[in-house]
Amino acid sequence: MEFQPKLDHGAEAPLYRQLSEQIAHQIRTGLLVRGERLPATRELAGLLGLNRTTVSAAYDILESEGLISGQVGRGSFVTGGAASAGGVDWNSLLERSDTSPAGPNGGWSKDVISFAVSRPSRDLFPLDEFRATCGTVLARGDLADILQLGSPGGYEPLRRYLMEEARRQEVAGPGDDLLITNGCQQALDLIGRVLLKPGDTVAVEDPLYTGLKNLLTGMGAQLCGVPVGADGMDAAQLERVLEREKPRFLVVTSNFQNPTGASLPLAARKALLDAARRASVPVIENDAYGELRYSGEPLPALKQLDEGGGTVLLRSFSKVSFPGLRVGWAVGPKPLIDRLRHAKEAADLHTDQLSQAVLLEFAESGRLEAHRARMRQAGSERLAATLESCAKYLPAGTRWTRPEGGMNVWVRLPEPLDAGELLARAQRAGVAYMPGRYFAVSRLEPGALRLSFAGLAPEQIRAGLAILGRTVAAEMENAGRTYEPSPAMV
Amino acid sequence: MEFQPKLDHGAEAPLYRQLSEQIAHQIRTGLLVRGERLPATRELAGLLGLNRTTVSAAYDILESEGLISGQVGRGSFVTGGAASAGGVDWNSLLERSDTSPAGPNGGWSKDVISFAVSRPSRDLFPLDEFRATCGTVLARGDLADILQLGSPGGYEPLRRYLMEEARRQEVAGPGDDLLITNGCQQALDLIGRVLLKPGDTVAVEDPLYTGLKNLLTGMGAQLCGVPVGADGMDAAQLERVLEREKPRFLVVTSNFQNPTGASLPLAARKALLDAARRASVPVIENDAYGELRYSGEPLPALKQLDEGGGTVLLRSFSKVSFPGLRVGWAVGPKPLIDRLRHAKEAADLHTDQLSQAVLLEFAESGRLEAHRARMRQAGSERLAATLESCAKYLPAGTRWTRPEGGMNVWVRLPEPLDAGELLARAQRAGVAYMPGRYFAVSRLEPGALRLSFAGLAPEQIRAGLAILGRTVAAEMENAGRTYEPSPAMV
Repeated sequence: MEFQPKLDHGAEAPLYRQLSEQIAHQIRTGLLVRGERLPATRELAGLLGLNRTTVSAAYDILESEGLISGQVGRGSFVTGGAASAGGVDWNSLLERSDTSPAGPNGGWSKDVISFAVSRPSRDLFPLDEFRATCGTVLARGDLADILQLGSPGGYEPLRRYLMEEARRQEVAGPGDDLLITNGCQQALDLIGRVLLKPGDTVAVEDPLYTGLKNLLTGMGAQLCGVPVGADGMDAAQLERVLEREKPRFLVVTSNFQNPTGASLPLAARKALLDAARRASVPVIENDAYGELRYSGEPLPALKQLDEGGGTVLLRSFSKVSFPGLRVGWAVGPKPLIDRLRHAKEAADLHTDQLSQAVLLEFAESGRLEAHRARMRQAGSERLAATLESCAKYLPAGTRWTRPEGGMNVWVRLPEPLDAGELLARAQRAGVAYMPGRYFAVSRLEPGALRLSFAGLAPEQIRAGLAILGRTVAAEMENAGRTYEPSPAMV
Repeated sequence: MEFQPKLDHGAEAPLYRQLSEQIAHQIRTGLLVRGERLPATRELAGLLGLNRTTVSAAYDILESEGLISGQVGRGSFVTGGAASAGGVDWNSLLERSDTSPAGPNGGWSKDVISFAVSRPSRDLFPLDEFRATCGTVLARGDLADILQLGSPGGYEPLRRYLMEEARRQEVAGPGDDLLITNGCQQALDLIGRVLLKPGDTVAVEDPLYTGLKNLLTGMGAQLCGVPVGADGMDAAQLERVLEREKPRFLVVTSNFQNPTGASLPLAARKALLDAARRASVPVIENDAYGELRYSGEPLPALKQLDEGGGTVLLRSFSKVSFPGLRVGWAVGPKPLIDRLRHAKEAADLHTDQLSQAVLLEFAESGRLEAHRARMRQAGSERLAATLESCAKYLPAGTRWTRPEGGMNVWVRLPEPLDAGELLARAQRAGVAYMPGRYFAVSRLEPGALRLSFAGLAPEQIRAGLAILGRTVAAEMENAGRTYEPSPAMV
């Protein structure tokens, strides 16, 4: 690299920004070519008379823009920009379809108590029972069939088992079929592929699970958010949205919604189905959490209540058993499932068969049911610890949901607190969560945050919320408010 | 069901078609409603004075149209059509995105020798070594991490292993990154998602692997086929296509293309890369079969030869080890891999981790290399049996490719034979294959067919081709030609 950047120490733009822009210009115009090594930060800092952190910050920007790539022990290399003669300009090719990732993802340091990820506790995995289950599958005579190319619909013995379960639970009728997917996420993706065109409107919950928000917006859908309260989607607003917007479909979580934990009461389920049928809008019932009910009576699924054939039910083994094994399923009207099966075949041929066979054996052996009972017990304790600690440690004016199951509690800190701004301070103090803005569709609640409690032991939950309480108190004192714990809740 | 269909025994339309159309009309207009049971075929045949097979044929059509659904022991039920009050009309909702499946898929009866599916033989799976591999993984201390929610990029130990392998093989440079996918099929899908808009042109091989053809047309791409000869894509035509059509990208199989078995010689690889770089067209190198070379010297991958950073390499464990475990990977420029990782997260969060961990152990223990050697030995014998039997049993004027590896041989029967028309007769005689029309992009070769030989033992291959030879001879005699075996080949 032989250029001499012209840096203006008196300019408004910081030096690291000036430096990164000038290097980016060199790359884009081909003066620095792909594969070329940049000077080490220490070296360039010395050459230019800059602080080393200034050079590092410039390199970080270039790396985030895909123009350079750093390798431990080897330095940084030019990866983007113009190629020597013709060549592919990836950055410009990829420009039009940018879908950015969504903030914190659980990559905290080890000593932070993280409420950020909605997943079960690894400490509760029944490892010996899993090993025994695998042992049974591996000893079977049909192991070679499991290892061979499979069918897009799913591993047939598992598909039959799930279909029988669905009939027994009255969520599958004579006109229904079942497709196995890589978890609920892929079922949602396949539904989007067969039903959506860019610009179509989709009715969703607000706040909404980030993975679904990113998926649908990535497909070019217009999201029309229906506010979620303690009893799920607001019925009056939902009816208005269905009638006025005529969305392509509605995605709804009947039980323990992510991020709020809210469930639809029976009457609300019936009203929702009536409204959807009147508007001829398909209902996608996303029920990854339904089996994790800790209190209250189980309610019939929308799919069970719907006599019009307009509902598809999505379920999964991931939340209740092993998220690392990607197996879920969709139950719905045969014409839709047929189309989803074609889309599934195009997407990845079929779902991994080893995991399908292992999860079938885990279920048929009765181990799944036993594990589910333990997960409900543990979840119940963790939810109780979360709700008690919210009451004990969070300041007056804080509100939170009281779910009867699932993995998430939705907290609203009193004004003028901003959960997004508070996060850095909370992480430094030793606790992490997902700020509400990651879930917002159209209603931004600055004070909102999601507590995913299922992955933490009760004592961690209590310790984490004590830290969060202290962090909030310090922030409020900064803002000139007094801190006063209170049991107010929603 | 209380309608009396009006059937015209003298009409040109066959009775089963008249019947199916009249029932379909009843369903679409709501006279037969969803969930209603249709009379049994025997019963309706009696009522209408028809042959029972006529009624069965009508029901088959209705079922294939998604209007009714048959359940063993329960009869047939109305599943499609108009709903009673409002409700969702799935058939009309799904109309605009129809992607039909592609013909035969290996569902032959047991005593047909099937050359129809490109997959390894289940008899060659090293079951004991697979069991031992799983045993090692299950005994490990990090089993809980494997079962926990993973990362969109892939199971990190496998990702690191594959990246090191890619660096060692010089197919990954400093600006590259690696993403784990559910086989090559999902890598192709993700690339389409981030690079394609409906109406974009994609340059592909002609004939083309059906799974890729369906995937790209399902995304609304315009396929521009470049004829494949014995040495892969025609260089002059490729150059014309790249310059004139400016395709969004080019998908090319460097080794043992499906369906033709053709590979690109070294000079053709360099010429292809030059042409692609001049036209600034990205190259997607689909290399699922590359490790299955039975003769000749291995050639450097396009990715290795490309110094311009415009190539992405797709590889997979599926063809060489266990297709039922869906694990492949993409190696390419970091900006593209970053975007593919976001698309992967939206599509299904991440690839199944149990299979990733098992395949890593299978590779690191040396078992994969040993298995690969056995697969090469078996493949070599099977390929030889196929080529010898083509020479021995197929008639004069037949031509076929002579691959140096992979799983497929491409056969062209002499005119006026039509491999599609011949298939029913061949199946009745006891042999199945894929007619060329399933792979055609724009050049329809009626006499072409694909022989997927890897799943069959040499004696099955010989027996199957003897049957095919007899079937062809009988067909030619019907057409007034004489049958004369000949060793002509391409």
